[in-house]
Amino acid sequence: MTAIDRIDVRTKGQGDVCDLTEAVERAVASAGLDSGLVTVFVTGSTAGVTTMEFEPGAVADLDRAFERLAPRRGDYAHHLRWGDDNGSSHVRAAMLGPSVTIPVVGGRLALGTWQQVVLVEFDTGPRERHVVVQVMGDAGA
Amino acid sequence: MTAIDRIDVRTKGQGDVCDLTEAVERAVASAGLDSGLVTVFVTGSTAGVTTMEFEPGAVADLDRAFERLAPRRGDYAHHLRWGDDNGSSHVRAAMLGPSVTIPVVGGRLALGTWQQVVLVEFDTGPRERHVVVQVMGDAGA
Amino acid sequence: MTAIDRIDVRTKGQGDVCDLTEAVERAVASAGLDSGLVTVFVTGSTAGVTTMEFEPGAVADLDRAFERLAPRRGDYAHHLRWGDDNGSSHVRAAMLGPSVTIPVVGGRLALGTWQQVVLVEFDTGPRERHVVVQVMGDAGA
Repeated sequence: MTAIDRIDVRTKGQGDVCDLTEAVERAVASAGLDSGLVTVFVTGSTAGVTTMEFEPGAVADLDRAFERLAPRRGDYAHHLRWGDDNGSSHVRAAMLGPSVTIPVVGGRLALGTWQQVVLVEFDTGPRERHVVVQVMGDAGA
Repeated sequence: MTAIDRIDVRTKGQGDVCDLTEAVERAVASAGLDSGLVTVFVTGSTAGVTTMEFEPGAVADLDRAFERLAPRRGDYAHHLRWGDDNGSSHVRAAMLGPSVTIPVVGGRLALGTWQQVVLVEFDTGPRERHVVVQVMGDAGA
Repeated sequence: MTAIDRIDVRTKGQGDVCDLTEAVERAVASAGLDSGLVTVFVTGSTAGVTTMEFEPGAVADLDRAFERLAPRRGDYAHHLRWGDDNGSSHVRAAMLGPSVTIPVVGGRLALGTWQQVVLVEFDTGPRERHVVVQVMGDAGA
């Protein structure tokens, strides 16, 4: 069986992290998946998806590390092309990647207790984000 | 249904980025997939796969960020082992990862308008790359 | 068909890399998968999974690059919250990601000769790690 769900999220701009775990769990439950995979994918090239402990300290630390890697106020060739200010966003998003794939075992995501599925916003302003949740595998009895 | 396709690409060496989007779309169409997943995976340990806006500015910016992270002319223990010059390539590829998994909805990849599936070459010289495209899900009516 | 396997690994702490390739190959063989996908996912928010050439030089080089990105002895907001010392571990793990998805073709992983599936430990001390191996696709004849 396969099923598709969509999560719409309003973000606050660069460094904002949104916990998608409950919405992904709901998608898995509503599809009736018992065993298989769920893929969480963000549409767009200035945001990413990963897992992390969703707490404000770790969220701030992650933003600081990305700032070292691709400083917001650096010089970007992308800016010259479009007059944009989000060159740092594109670099960060390409490095993190747009998706994570998580096994589902006995109807539950194989996450740890302190491990959440998160959307990381890299764009320089607030955005409406569309996250696709693809569920695939065997339905429960 | 499952189907496998392969994309062969000739790259120009470190920092080269190849847009695979059309070839992946063709693989999905030729498999007749309506709803499911496509996984794009590069064989080898000195290249990676992600999504990004494929335009020369963003490509140059990404290369500069990887150069800060793992400078090409740095000292690498990997060089001592093999006499290679591509220690930076191995580090960058391990960090980016070899694959991306993308939902397919109504026969189309869930990509944004400015979001392409790309191969990122990290090796220090041109390479022939083999990309495996794995399609899985439900065929259209 | 879908099948789940689990790999338990004892790691030595930050920078330790464990080669999971043989265990993943065994999971694919014991499930009898001929064509499809295997997803390798680590439970927890202070470790990651990727592919790389598993040799001591590249392992040391990867650790050095992560040390530049998120220094172990840096200041982390995560430390203030929990009194932990593993802020660097959380940042590194979120950036690398918890999983990799690999096509299976003719019963074999689509890996290169010098490309292994690895668990990267980021926590500051030894850990027992639980890796979930999810196999999905078509059984052989």
